Amino acid sequence: MLGLMQQQSLLISSLIDFAERHHGDGEIISRRVEGDIHRSNWATAARRSRQVANALDGMQLAQGSRVATLAWNGYRHLELYFGVSGSGRVLHTINPRLHPEQIAWIANHAEDQVLCFDMTFLPLVQAVHAQCKTIRQYVALCDADKLPADTGIPGLVSYEAWMGQQPDTYDWPTLDENTACTLCYTSGTTGNPKGALYSHRSTVLHAYAAALPDVMCISARDSILPVVPMFHVNAWGIPYSAAMVGAKLVFPGPALDGKSVYELIETEGVTFAAGVPTVWQMLLGHMKPAGLKFSKLTRTVIGGSACPPAMITAFREDYGVEVLHAWGMTELSPLGTLCNLKNKHERLSDAEKMKIRMKQGRCIFGIDMKIVDEQGQELPHDGKSAGDLLVKGPWVIASYFKQEGGDPLVNGWFPTGDVATIDADGFMQITDRSKDVIKSGGEWISSIDVENIAMAHPAVAMAACIGMRHPKWDERPIVCVVTKPGAQVSRDELIAFYEGKTAKWQIPDDVVFVDAIPLGATGKMLKTRLREQLTGYTLPGL
Amino acid sequence: MLGLMQQQSLLISSLIDFAERHHGDGEIISRRVEGDIHRSNWATAARRSRQVANALDGMQLAQGSRVATLAWNGYRHLELYFGVSGSGRVLHTINPRLHPEQIAWIANHAEDQVLCFDMTFLPLVQAVHAQCKTIRQYVALCDADKLPADTGIPGLVSYEAWMGQQPDTYDWPTLDENTACTLCYTSGTTGNPKGALYSHRSTVLHAYAAALPDVMCISARDSILPVVPMFHVNAWGIPYSAAMVGAKLVFPGPALDGKSVYELIETEGVTFAAGVPTVWQMLLGHMKPAGLKFSKLTRTVIGGSACPPAMITAFREDYGVEVLHAWGMTELSPLGTLCNLKNKHERLSDAEKMKIRMKQGRCIFGIDMKIVDEQGQELPHDGKSAGDLLVKGPWVIASYFKQEGGDPLVNGWFPTGDVATIDADGFMQITDRSKDVIKSGGEWISSIDVENIAMAHPAVAMAACIGMRHPKWDERPIVCVVTKPGAQVSRDELIAFYEGKTAKWQIPDDVVFVDAIPLGATGKMLKTRLREQLTGYTLPGL
Repeated sequence: MLGLMQQQSLLISSLIDFAERHHGDGEIISRRVEGDIHRSNWATAARRSRQVANALDGMQLAQGSRVATLAWNGYRHLELYFGVSGSGRVLHTINPRLHPEQIAWIANHAEDQVLCFDMTFLPLVQAVHAQCKTIRQYVALCDADKLPADTGIPGLVSYEAWMGQQPDTYDWPTLDENTACTLCYTSGTTGNPKGALYSHRSTVLHAYAAALPDVMCISARDSILPVVPMFHVNAWGIPYSAAMVGAKLVFPGPALDGKSVYELIETEGVTFAAGVPTVWQMLLGHMKPAGLKFSKLTRTVIGGSACPPAMITAFREDYGVEVLHAWGMTELSPLGTLCNLKNKHERLSDAEKMKIRMKQGRCIFGIDMKIVDEQGQELPHDGKSAGDLLVKGPWVIASYFKQEGGDPLVNGWFPTGDVATIDADGFMQITDRSKDVIKSGGEWISSIDVENIAMAHPAVAMAACIGMRHPKWDERPIVCVVTKPGAQVSRDELIAFYEGKTAKWQIPDDVVFVDAIPLGATGKMLKTRLREQLTGYTLPGL
Repeated sequence: MLGLMQQQSLLISSLIDFAERHHGDGEIISRRVEGDIHRSNWATAARRSRQVANALDGMQLAQGSRVATLAWNGYRHLELYFGVSGSGRVLHTINPRLHPEQIAWIANHAEDQVLCFDMTFLPLVQAVHAQCKTIRQYVALCDADKLPADTGIPGLVSYEAWMGQQPDTYDWPTLDENTACTLCYTSGTTGNPKGALYSHRSTVLHAYAAALPDVMCISARDSILPVVPMFHVNAWGIPYSAAMVGAKLVFPGPALDGKSVYELIETEGVTFAAGVPTVWQMLLGHMKPAGLKFSKLTRTVIGGSACPPAMITAFREDYGVEVLHAWGMTELSPLGTLCNLKNKHERLSDAEKMKIRMKQGRCIFGIDMKIVDEQGQELPHDGKSAGDLLVKGPWVIASYFKQEGGDPLVNGWFPTGDVATIDADGFMQITDRSKDVIKSGGEWISSIDVENIAMAHPAVAMAACIGMRHPKWDERPIVCVVTKPGAQVSRDELIAFYEGKTAKWQIPDDVVFVDAIPLGATGKMLKTRLREQLTGYTLPGL
């Protein structure tokens, strides 16, 4: 027997309709590529999203066609989020930090038909457009009078000329909620990128979950700065959750330096910010020497890669900002866990609380997770047993776009490629990437643990731990270190620094000082590349 | 083109699975009918829910069959919530405050096959069971040794004997998410009760929405006291939202007096409570004379009927508790709006904020609403135009159980029967029930406004405004008043009290002092009954 409730699809167009209708004057602030501050609101964003939809209709662009963006966080990008997906096309956000050849490969693989780009990326588009066979319309995200005369890109129009004259009424189609809405490629460190193809349903469910008090806690009282890029898994879904609750949005554009971000936080009364550790490092680097404080910022979610403990402490103790650790991936839309304490933890000491906060966090309802051993047997949630982390849920992919790479699931579970522990309270902690894990004498050593200890040394700016072949132990860890400008530490001093902080056999055998650690487009360390740089290296004593 | 995300039904069984898996030791505290305090947790609730499911399977109870409850808020009722719905049956929560004849009528209409009841209601069940033709199993929610020997109810078993020996493993069925899960009859003041038949999908979506920061803001850090009964629209969905985030639940059982509720709040560290105004009045009545304060309670949601402004002020100013106004109805699962301020309201004065807080609140994403005039034309959201309030959304009914009363929708919108205004910020304010609205000289007078002013007088305990026929003005308002024990106010004094507080023509023509105002089963004033009591009354001057 079925219930007798109204059937209403979970659609992205409902989000922008709702924001317009109930939060029309809710602000949307953007620092533009030009550097100036642009002020818009949800009613205007909704109106202009409908103009975008009409522009796409005018091109006879079929349902399901991909519209790509190479763009910073800003109001025009937001309009594309709703106009493209709302009208039944698929928004494909390309990461501009990828190598130009990868960008062309992705655009061809996605069969993008339109590419909208910020003027920052004009040289990039000039370099790749000849290779992008399927794109029939290039749109520069600028005013008509900002469009250079001769770019060499055929048929290039400005965004304002393209959509500005379109009617601002539009009947959003009543789509099947499983219709594709967004395409996002993973920045795999090996092999070709693979696309995650989100649906309206998965996106709206993720938006509900992301806004929950135990997750990003997003409300109409918030002013939100998504520093995490809109080309990086939809800025963790913040644009959708913000529309869902009518929050104020503050977009930083390309200016991610500490000074620019700090100014925006203060002038726009930002209460909540989200981003990867690198940006927060720059922000603190700007604030500390000047003795600056936040007036309204009370919480931040940090994810994308493991956050150095020292940063959590600094935010918390010096700036009164609650730092929440998040974990997710492109294949998870992206949120999987968030690290918020429970009712029962209230009585713990600060040190004990900190120990929990260092973990990646608890599952958000919708996501389930388990850890398994090499035989696929589920391991206990005891906070000690480490195994491959598998997840499932309505905002986890079932397969990649065009079935690239075959069926990724293992009995319905998606293998994340991370190695993790889960404790009795459900808190998950990533100990390693599956391929980075070091096996020494039959035991696993977490490269992340080894790196975190090195990072806690005042002279160390960055650390990467990798396993080196060893005839007796199978593998032994070494740590590659970049020192801070002007700071010095010797190999032996750093090895000694590990004493008492970890088991003896987990202390790296050697320290290799390097000028830089190679990073991928989303800031992840490329250990394969680092390994190549170390060709010819031998462990001490061998 | 469809997205490539995992297909996972939104099911009530997923909620209890999640709570067990990630919040197993999250507490569930109940004051039992016997008066003692019972301590359980989510893992135990999950285990016992599965035993309930096995007990139902053992009865060969078909999918979709109705299992009724006549029960207070407590752990056994919670287990039935998940065991009955999770296994594919429909939980039918009966309001024990209804007249016994109505209860029998509803049980027959629902074709209930099992009735689980708290021992409080044994006399009630003894009185009605002979009329309940479809019930084949009566279960008393008590230990085996608490079951009286001869109740006259055939085949009566104790809950513990019924489910206690069942295996605690069970494979929840993978249901269509639109499957019915819960049946709840509206306490209509006229005509036969009508059933709202919720689905798993509508319930899970409502659970996400109800937990949002702008709604009830439910997290794993909360200890929640749902004073609102589990037989009253699923305690506003709190059991589901609490499972979704692993919150601690504190159930008051039948003891809703001020002293019992206060003790439970303090001993169990309650942070959030939800209920109807009457209960809070009793609570404040207990606390005030004794000079008691709350140690952890910081917010409460009040709904069910309009909340007297004086109570909001008292909670806020004297007890530091944020009072949030909610509005909903059985047909809405029940939440429609909640009154939380926006970012832009931060700069307002306390008085201005209070003016907004007095409204019923803003739409929760999922629900949309509009107000229309008598011709069905949409009225502007200007905070002044009052019209019939219509709603739609995935947790709004499409029709009543067994199509009772025909198609309730008007072009896809559900007419609430309320008359309301909506302001430019989306805040809705109920001005009246459609049938209670008073039309005087072509203008509408809000009976709620008239009542609220009377309620602000220190001598008034309760006030009900009704319209009386008038040859010239069509209708004129009068106010029926119950005075507080020992307090006195004259007709003329109360009329004078209205001066300056409302327009002259909106001041009631008369005050009628009554001993009591007739209330329905959920505490709503029965104005039809009141009107009958006033037969023979004539307006002054006529």
